[in-house]
Amino acid sequence: MSGKLTGKAREKALAGLKGWSKVKGRDAIEKTFKFKDFNEAFGFMTRVALVAEKMDHHPEWANVYNRLDVVLTTHDADGLSDKDVTLATLMDKWAGKAGKTTKK
Amino acid sequence: MSGKLTGKAREKALAGLKGWSKVKGRDAIEKTFKFKDFNEAFGFMTRVALVAEKMDHHPEWANVYNRLDVVLTTHDADGLSDKDVTLATLMDKWAGKAGKTTKK
Repeated sequence: MSGKLTGKAREKALAGLKGWSKVKGRDAIEKTFKFKDFNEAFGFMTRVALVAEKMDHHPEWANVYNRLDVVLTTHDADGLSDKDVTLATLMDKWAGKAGKTTKK
Repeated sequence: MSGKLTGKAREKALAGLKGWSKVKGRDAIEKTFKFKDFNEAFGFMTRVALVAEKMDHHPEWANVYNRLDVVLTTHDADGLSDKDVTLATLMDKWAGKAGKTTKK
């Protein structure tokens, strides 16, 4: 179980992420990734899925061809935790190599 | 490129599907699948992704842990085509073994 990020630790963690924005009405963050095609998008999803399963921390995500909308939050913590920051950082790193990232 | 399904052929094709419903405001069909866990949900998505890529016909889908919401339509045909029926039939077949299917 991860604790909810609050105060300075939260500010610092979120400041380190690129292109993620707050979800309206929820303590969650979101980002849209755009890849070259479905192959690249689903390849990226598969890499993330393996890590998410290992972390037992899963994204909410929607895919249409080359587009992937991701929402991260921690249900156990009822908000953002360090697990979300870890997963977001990893997705940024991998998407940076695999495709373009686009803020909503 | 697939032709849009119309008339009797359309009725017959849609009648053969289980648990799919019309999307409001679009010529598309949708279904929600519920699996045991993320492993089973993403395993199912991966099987479908390989076939979708081969068919060059991709679902619109959203996944949250064990839940998968799928929308099928054919952009080229500006509506439902036989490709959607083929993919829906395959998803029903595989989900029937891998997990429960639930109509929205």
